[in-house]
Amino acid sequence: MAKLTYEDFQPGQVFPLGPKYVTAQEIIEFAREFDPQPMHLDEAAGRASILGGLAASGWHTSAMFMRMMTDSYLLNTEAEGAPGIDFMDWKNPVLAGDTLSGRSIVLESRPMRSRPGIGIVKFRHEVENQRSQLVCLGENSTMIRMRLPVEASA
Amino acid sequence: MAKLTYEDFQPGQVFPLGPKYVTAQEIIEFAREFDPQPMHLDEAAGRASILGGLAASGWHTSAMFMRMMTDSYLLNTEAEGAPGIDFMDWKNPVLAGDTLSGRSIVLESRPMRSRPGIGIVKFRHEVENQRSQLVCLGENSTMIRMRLPVEASA
Repeated sequence: MAKLTYEDFQPGQVFPLGPKYVTAQEIIEFAREFDPQPMHLDEAAGRASILGGLAASGWHTSAMFMRMMTDSYLLNTEAEGAPGIDFMDWKNPVLAGDTLSGRSIVLESRPMRSRPGIGIVKFRHEVENQRSQLVCLGENSTMIRMRLPVEASA
Repeated sequence: MAKLTYEDFQPGQVFPLGPKYVTAQEIIEFAREFDPQPMHLDEAAGRASILGGLAASGWHTSAMFMRMMTDSYLLNTEAEGAPGIDFMDWKNPVLAGDTLSGRSIVLESRPMRSRPGIGIVKFRHEVENQRSQLVCLGENSTMIRMRLPVEASA
């Protein structure tokens, strides 16, 4: 089956994310490698922090959100990666035992001037926990191949 | 030895990051868990993509940058986490065999109105490869405890 291309992403489209259950072990393993601050490694230290419990690193939350995107639509898309993140807010802590879900919403799209045959699709991403509290809110753009390459404008 | 507090972070201060050597195995392991797109899993697929080789997920680059920050100054700081990322640009691919280094520069600081005893320190972060090409450029803020709590303004 042909993958989704640039032309298939239209403003207003919504792609569901998750669900993803988050274990204490996952939180601790990510933190040991990438963010070994006490509140991400230890339940008691987490409770003593302003996060209120053993809490995932914001970068771990972002990485889990990335996996939810690949599983929802990116692996089925002619995607060429993303040039960065416009912004990402970690609105509430992600605690051990939380279940995350959410959505990617297409905001806009345009052909890349610098790369003929590839377009930029801008998304808004929202991830919530099982209490419908936003944990992660952000926007970024992804480079996606066109099915029908257009001539690059001068 | 007492950890660094809010008062210790002054605009213009620079904290060095890295060096961090990046292996193909690390790139593939992160991608398998969080971003299983072909250019992050396989050398040939990476070469066929616009990234030009087996390339780290941008989220992996960001996670490695986080670890460089904890090793440089965050573990020695009364830090309470970050509310998000103002922006992060992945300027060039991070390829297997690259060595990353860089710096965090203090831009500004202010007491938090909502949390007495904690201040917000805003940083600019720059990560480069061994060819002095920027791979990651971003800004974000970190919440840091004060040594001498100031009365919250009404």
